Amino acid sequence: MSESDKLKNTHTIGRLVEIAQQWYDQISDGEIPSIRLPTRTKQNIAYDEATDVWKYGEKESTRAASTARGATHLLKMAYVIGFLKGQLTENRSSTLREMYYISEGWKKAKFTAQDESNYLVEDLEIVTALEREAFHLRPEEDGATIFGPVRIRETTRRGAREIHCRDDVGEAGYAIPNNVGSVEFIDHDAKFVIAMETGGMYARLQENGFDEEYNCVLVHLKGQPARSTRRMLKKLNEELKLPVLIFTDGDPWSYRIYASVAYGSIKSAHMSELLATPAAQFVGVQPSDIRDYDLPADTLSEQDIAALKAELSDPRFATDYWREQINLQLSMGLKSEQQAFAARGLDFVTGEYLPKRLKEMGVV
Amino acid sequence: MSESDKLKNTHTIGRLVEIAQQWYDQISDGEIPSIRLPTRTKQNIAYDEATDVWKYGEKESTRAASTARGATHLLKMAYVIGFLKGQLTENRSSTLREMYYISEGWKKAKFTAQDESNYLVEDLEIVTALEREAFHLRPEEDGATIFGPVRIRETTRRGAREIHCRDDVGEAGYAIPNNVGSVEFIDHDAKFVIAMETGGMYARLQENGFDEEYNCVLVHLKGQPARSTRRMLKKLNEELKLPVLIFTDGDPWSYRIYASVAYGSIKSAHMSELLATPAAQFVGVQPSDIRDYDLPADTLSEQDIAALKAELSDPRFATDYWREQINLQLSMGLKSEQQAFAARGLDFVTGEYLPKRLKEMGVV
Repeated sequence: MSESDKLKNTHTIGRLVEIAQQWYDQISDGEIPSIRLPTRTKQNIAYDEATDVWKYGEKESTRAASTARGATHLLKMAYVIGFLKGQLTENRSSTLREMYYISEGWKKAKFTAQDESNYLVEDLEIVTALEREAFHLRPEEDGATIFGPVRIRETTRRGAREIHCRDDVGEAGYAIPNNVGSVEFIDHDAKFVIAMETGGMYARLQENGFDEEYNCVLVHLKGQPARSTRRMLKKLNEELKLPVLIFTDGDPWSYRIYASVAYGSIKSAHMSELLATPAAQFVGVQPSDIRDYDLPADTLSEQDIAALKAELSDPRFATDYWREQINLQLSMGLKSEQQAFAARGLDFVTGEYLPKRLKEMGVV
Repeated sequence: MSESDKLKNTHTIGRLVEIAQQWYDQISDGEIPSIRLPTRTKQNIAYDEATDVWKYGEKESTRAASTARGATHLLKMAYVIGFLKGQLTENRSSTLREMYYISEGWKKAKFTAQDESNYLVEDLEIVTALEREAFHLRPEEDGATIFGPVRIRETTRRGAREIHCRDDVGEAGYAIPNNVGSVEFIDHDAKFVIAMETGGMYARLQENGFDEEYNCVLVHLKGQPARSTRRMLKKLNEELKLPVLIFTDGDPWSYRIYASVAYGSIKSAHMSELLATPAAQFVGVQPSDIRDYDLPADTLSEQDIAALKAELSDPRFATDYWREQINLQLSMGLKSEQQAFAARGLDFVTGEYLPKRLKEMGVV
């Protein structure tokens, strides 16, 4: 284990053990041990205009050992803290699911459902203000892939690896690890990052040499992006100061992909500041593109229409731009996939659409 | 374009143009142009005991230009052949979805639904006995990832890349490209391949150093494996003569993952011989493991029970082994996830379960 890993792990253990220390102090003072947490209901989640992300509000609830239920909750938390302390000391890691199964041996502190252990870990993230990756709890899902002019150093269990994400990888690119915290940027020659919803478009930009012509980093989102993919986009934006552009299909579900990258989601409100990239910009497919380029399109389904209407009242889409685009789409009744640009030839998207659109957005 | 790529592309063009040549000859001879294909119905798909894969039977249908419908079909095929010839000549590639959109410009030969273009490409695969990757039609889905003691050379558009799948990659591993045909094995130090359903187990084996201790290649299947992942498993098995082991959850849906790797699926019956790895062996989670290791388990749902019963009449599961296991599972009424082994500690799966099971299977 490297010195910096040791320091990180010691810091995390400190934050976790502090919680137990507080219970100890409470008991010493003749108080009933308890913990205070923001109330985890939709009513207590608000969109924070200053930082452009979802956050918990002021309401707090207390969990105390004054009832059997409260005491069991604190007991489970104590077991989890003990388990995490152990794995951090040994520099090991596990998945949430593994921890759930490990709790089989914790008798009265055994979890009764996977949701319960997930929820408890979110509580610990909130109380410690650390991510689960700091606890060495790995997400189940891998990240997606990256291709472009950036050289990274990843600290792996088998040693450090320096990898240039274009020269040292195959066509599928560099696979983003579970824990983006283990990746550092060494150097780069990139002007912006463009993240694509579909593998077809990721491969199209690569085949057409778009990353070389425009010095950009291509990211494959693989649909709704995994936690590690969102962390990587945030890291590229914050550490390398690169604009992050999101290029998806032109339908309400894809706009949500953009929103989850840019503003976070209600589900991960407690981690918004760590996961969201408020500076991320939406490229398209815009409803106005469907009209202006006469793209092959499908009729909106009832679900599509309902989702678009829900977006009109979603604070993340409360801008003139989105209101205009969504209303235009509702009036046209059409949606298009990003690969529909192929109707104008395989080079149209990289030779005409993107250069024009990125100029309009002030990126190139 | 390398000489070998040129040769490959010329060969593929030859096979495609042959189809059109046949129509030309038919017309010259005063015949109505037509094409013969195996009938694509479930009734004409049979399990081939000799090769252990699904294949089309003897029934053939003819598509002839004697009706407007038949003529339109041949016209579309002619357009597709022309399009593929063009992209092979330029050494370019595209997705099925892009080709569908490109057909917008083909007037009467325009596809009316994506299914139609997918189906036509399958017809061309059958007639030419080549895979769509040879036509440079990329699957939408990327492959999964590999980690282990094997060095590959991938021919990419940016030049050849030599990559050791353990020493030159991050913790997520080497990302399998769309076209496994562009990958060659240089050298390796592996004794077998173990493919895991979940990312949690892939990371567990890596963290516990299982690949080093047993000299094996770890593959992450990511649920139902993509086409390129199945091709990679077949390639590892055939070219390197490595046993391929499949390690999944212990439920009927996971047994289907195993079956699709080993025997192929009805849907891709025409490509079974290219995609299936009949030598692949199932590791677990076996219903008998749930019993023998007293694994944490969930009750089978009605859908699970129905799926297990369907498997009892599926020729791919018509062995004593599977009948015994499936009947045992039905009588226990339980299923377990592969990560349930964590109930016995994070090292149990690599330190006890797998060594014992692989010995029993004759692999180590």
